[in-house]
Amino acid sequence: MSTLDGEGGSATRRRPGRRPGSADTRGEILAAARRVFAEKGFDKATVRGIAREAKVDPALVHHYFDTKEGMFAAAMQLPITPDEIIPVLLDGPREEIGERLVRLILHVTAAPETREPLVALIRSAMTNEQAAGMFREFITNALLYQVADRLGVPHLRVEAGFAQMFGVIMGRYVLKLEPLASADHEELVELLGPTIQRYFTG
Amino acid sequence: MSTLDGEGGSATRRRPGRRPGSADTRGEILAAARRVFAEKGFDKATVRGIAREAKVDPALVHHYFDTKEGMFAAAMQLPITPDEIIPVLLDGPREEIGERLVRLILHVTAAPETREPLVALIRSAMTNEQAAGMFREFITNALLYQVADRLGVPHLRVEAGFAQMFGVIMGRYVLKLEPLASADHEELVELLGPTIQRYFTG
Repeated sequence: MSTLDGEGGSATRRRPGRRPGSADTRGEILAAARRVFAEKGFDKATVRGIAREAKVDPALVHHYFDTKEGMFAAAMQLPITPDEIIPVLLDGPREEIGERLVRLILHVTAAPETREPLVALIRSAMTNEQAAGMFREFITNALLYQVADRLGVPHLRVEAGFAQMFGVIMGRYVLKLEPLASADHEELVELLGPTIQRYFTG
Repeated sequence: MSTLDGEGGSATRRRPGRRPGSADTRGEILAAARRVFAEKGFDKATVRGIAREAKVDPALVHHYFDTKEGMFAAAMQLPITPDEIIPVLLDGPREEIGERLVRLILHVTAAPETREPLVALIRSAMTNEQAAGMFREFITNALLYQVADRLGVPHLRVEAGFAQMFGVIMGRYVLKLEPLASADHEELVELLGPTIQRYFTG
């Protein structure tokens, strides 16, 4: 995850004499992606359709973004992509997946610059039907079902785990419930890890 | 909970010749309560302050509403009050509290007319700092800490249980994640009951 630190727009320094090229093209592709994802949802959006909207060749879109999932994460300024999160969950002993998942979510949401885009997306999904559809398709098809299917766990159990961590993050950072908001990571890993573990292997 | 069914504003029938009195006064008190709760939050709002805002005697406020908690629930059109929910949780074997709580939350949120005011309040709390403060004070001081203290359970553990059920309700009814949104109550009781039970007694 930390590989993405500092890769926000502000990190793109403008040097004198630099040809205005790739940075703007990438930005235009992302703006087009946001429009297409909002209009069609995650499932029906295609790289080809986003290229058409951005008036560029699909090969150029592939040059910047390996996958539709990666493009969605970049367009929504999400701190991590499913391609990064899934291996972390799957890599390691199966009997420690609960602890690994809780640590990962707490780590990713601890820094404001990685948490805020995620909270912004969730806020949109909570108040806007179109944003909810886009978020739903992304979170299920690109993340939860992928993890569930690779581990052979029913989708419902993985969604129960998602619900637990979603509630914890909202309780900590949006509702700011105490003592949840101030609890340290170790205490939360001990409390929540067995819950997630049971959903995955119980 | 079902005692509140059909007690919405539309149930107040206007009969010919009826003196316009108590129904309007109650409505004016509730409108004043909404303004005072929004401005001061739940903790600092007082029955006396709400009576002053509504320009009525505090005794009249007490005539309509037994407690500040009850007034808050009525002002926000919540389907249940802590006074109703807490005894249901506490009444019965301690080793079945997880199952009881999951059943209660699923039951209360199953009907749109009881769920929607709750979802509306949560949506406000997710997007508006003032509403978040009001919701936070109410949910902790009037509900979660009460339950925790009466059972001798640490506040953090009760909030972990709240986070689980908050995530499930948001996942079912706002994000509409499948299969969570369509899962039947028995399946969810079996899946989630042990999680809540462990937070309360584990």
